Amino acid sequence: MNKAYVDELIKIVGEEYVLTSIEDLHCYSYDATPGYSNMPEVVVRPANAKEVSEILKVATKNQIPVYTRGSGTNLSAGCVPMKGGIVLVMTRLNKLLEIDLENLVAVAEPGLVVAELNTAVAKHGLIYPPDPGTVATASLGGTISENAGGLRGLKYGVSKHYVMGLEVVLSTGEIIKTGGKNVKDVSGYDLTKLFTGAEGTLGIITKAIVKLVPAPEARKSMMAIFKDLDDAGKAVSGIIAAKIIPATLEIMDNASIRTTEDYAHVGLPLDAEAVLLIEVDGIKEVVEKEAAKVIAVLKENNAAEVHMAKDDAERDKIWAARRAALPALAKLRPTTFVEDATVPRSKVPDFLKAVSRISKKYNVTVGTFGHAGDGNMHPTIVCDLRDKEEMKNVYKAMDEMFTEAINLGGTLSGEHGIGLGKLPWMEKQHGPQAMNAMRSIKRALDPALILNPGKLLGEC
Amino acid sequence: MNKAYVDELIKIVGEEYVLTSIEDLHCYSYDATPGYSNMPEVVVRPANAKEVSEILKVATKNQIPVYTRGSGTNLSAGCVPMKGGIVLVMTRLNKLLEIDLENLVAVAEPGLVVAELNTAVAKHGLIYPPDPGTVATASLGGTISENAGGLRGLKYGVSKHYVMGLEVVLSTGEIIKTGGKNVKDVSGYDLTKLFTGAEGTLGIITKAIVKLVPAPEARKSMMAIFKDLDDAGKAVSGIIAAKIIPATLEIMDNASIRTTEDYAHVGLPLDAEAVLLIEVDGIKEVVEKEAAKVIAVLKENNAAEVHMAKDDAERDKIWAARRAALPALAKLRPTTFVEDATVPRSKVPDFLKAVSRISKKYNVTVGTFGHAGDGNMHPTIVCDLRDKEEMKNVYKAMDEMFTEAINLGGTLSGEHGIGLGKLPWMEKQHGPQAMNAMRSIKRALDPALILNPGKLLGEC
Repeated sequence: MNKAYVDELIKIVGEEYVLTSIEDLHCYSYDATPGYSNMPEVVVRPANAKEVSEILKVATKNQIPVYTRGSGTNLSAGCVPMKGGIVLVMTRLNKLLEIDLENLVAVAEPGLVVAELNTAVAKHGLIYPPDPGTVATASLGGTISENAGGLRGLKYGVSKHYVMGLEVVLSTGEIIKTGGKNVKDVSGYDLTKLFTGAEGTLGIITKAIVKLVPAPEARKSMMAIFKDLDDAGKAVSGIIAAKIIPATLEIMDNASIRTTEDYAHVGLPLDAEAVLLIEVDGIKEVVEKEAAKVIAVLKENNAAEVHMAKDDAERDKIWAARRAALPALAKLRPTTFVEDATVPRSKVPDFLKAVSRISKKYNVTVGTFGHAGDGNMHPTIVCDLRDKEEMKNVYKAMDEMFTEAINLGGTLSGEHGIGLGKLPWMEKQHGPQAMNAMRSIKRALDPALILNPGKLLGEC
Repeated sequence: MNKAYVDELIKIVGEEYVLTSIEDLHCYSYDATPGYSNMPEVVVRPANAKEVSEILKVATKNQIPVYTRGSGTNLSAGCVPMKGGIVLVMTRLNKLLEIDLENLVAVAEPGLVVAELNTAVAKHGLIYPPDPGTVATASLGGTISENAGGLRGLKYGVSKHYVMGLEVVLSTGEIIKTGGKNVKDVSGYDLTKLFTGAEGTLGIITKAIVKLVPAPEARKSMMAIFKDLDDAGKAVSGIIAAKIIPATLEIMDNASIRTTEDYAHVGLPLDAEAVLLIEVDGIKEVVEKEAAKVIAVLKENNAAEVHMAKDDAERDKIWAARRAALPALAKLRPTTFVEDATVPRSKVPDFLKAVSRISKKYNVTVGTFGHAGDGNMHPTIVCDLRDKEEMKNVYKAMDEMFTEAINLGGTLSGEHGIGLGKLPWMEKQHGPQAMNAMRSIKRALDPALILNPGKLLGEC
């Protein structure tokens, strides 16, 4: 029962790359976000920008929604084809086209896996800093479209800080180029930044020019245990006030600590209100100097215990605790919501206390860990999606948590994007006028409203 | 002969802040760009966002063009009221509202002079890195709207890298807020970056949240003289390839060297094809290490002479040469065009050779200095605007220079903006489809087309 437009798609990419069986469609009906799924009509796997352009012309002509997808690791339902239509899978456009050592940039297609990009540039002593937890599977295009971050966000920022130029196919099928290899480029509106993080609602990225930076020559990891959450918060602010910008500055709250210890037996004290995990990186001499300063700040702020990793084995042990936080929580219950509400760094203790209060109020299990240095928290709710009564409480708790983050001057998303998961709170954060401004941009660039419709902005 | 709408403006801001005399209007008929001027109908000086909002409502209702202006130091005619109408002067909104040390941000009004912001944050050991040549007079709002850069762009970037949030008045009079104090914020389209560098064509900035960074604790300046331009180019690439990102990495070409020496007698050899001026900054130990590496790279690439400043006095002497380049050139002839064509750093020697060839071809005096490390060149044409015949050649030379920059993968503007000055080459750089995409954004956000009409994109 292929629709007529599907035959047109087959003409463009070949039969092999158009999937219509129930089994195939099912695989592309969801992403890594719990609670959202819907079957597409067809899955298409183009080979290049020209094919993407032809597909979009067909979609615009027939008014078919197009949901672009990389590896599907999305945590805000950005890839889910809620209105059926086409899932456009970009994994065949996976070439690393160029590593330009003189200009410190790489040029790559969107289907390239981020870890593969990093492996390739590592040979030249360079890194591409965005390192989401899914770095081993996530695609470059997906991470750019969702503005993915990672543990190094405090010092190194998120994807948007590294995207210098794009090739983008508009819904009309027109192919445009934005930005380039220029370190300084202020010619025209910043379309590069507009398409970055637009979650596939404005155009389809078919090529990206990304900035690379020299790999740090040394690093030093530390862990500190706090009996009092406020002391941990003061230590975070104290480190920054001492003019140190660690690569990583993570926090785990008491719920995370207990769950992680139970799961991984890494030796975390169950009565600690917070653990901070810190890594400074850079040139060897600086790292030594900064690590010593960090230790002093931790002690000044009443850290009960402070550990400094002496070697890579000890470093790995420290980070194993942090890495275990999510799987430990996920193991407790069938469903895991990893949120990424973010607040100004000075508000981290306030936010953690609010999460703890809200979790008790609604009897919902929430463990919070995250990037304390940049205020990007991951309150992680574990529950059972099949339990309708419990889910009512889960959604009420989420509502209060996001509202709290916004009230603290925060944002709904530090690195996962909005998609559908955080759509209900968008107007609360941005206000109706700014939402209208965003919607008018959507209508201007995608007048047929076929690109990932309903995501990020709701109906336009 | 006040028009009716002028009375409405007087009601909003008070008579004192509405200027209509010929003498006053004349002062706001031009900016720092040669060759562009036109009289406005009225100059308005609002005190706050609410007044700006009321003014824009009047302007939209009466279809009056609005040209926003800070200190008027613009180098691409962005402030010039080519269609008359209202010049909206933002200098009364000049308060530094907050320095937030925990979150390392400042909140300020757009009329604040950038140097005043820097003086205020320096007390806390912080800097706001964008430092255009006009830093002592340029306003924060103007530098954000033009995406101004400066000598530290290689390491520290341009204005857009520091703008975290904005308050913006749309042409409808609606006031929106974008971004905030969050280090990581990926919620919705990046309106902050869209309004930054939009040259007042999309909305009027009435408040800005900007990122501050710790001031470097040490710095070291060096100068190297090259007999061969290609060697200088290789040295620039060699420094970057050695994984050193200097704060400043400047070049002066032979024409600049000769003019500067003649004007300032700083001891530059007249037969040198290029001088490189370099400053590394950061933590003391790193600065020493990096400076030694830089010296080695300079020598490897056949620098004829290398000087390292031993103290601040010697440092000042090195930078005096660079600072003298523009006044030395400007002294030669009545009119000075400072351009900011930018190329990928690896293309700097190619571009400088092209400029030299073009200057001979059209018998036009061009001295080029600029930010070699980030490819941001300042080919500076000195001429006499009153000499119609000479000006024909000047414009032909400009046309070839900008075309050459674009052909080398460069951009029309590294830090001065497009305005009217570089409008003729916008389609050549971006292509008609991307220009249409930008124009559709303009129409979406400013449907009345009253905000700085004709700039950046031409007619919409």
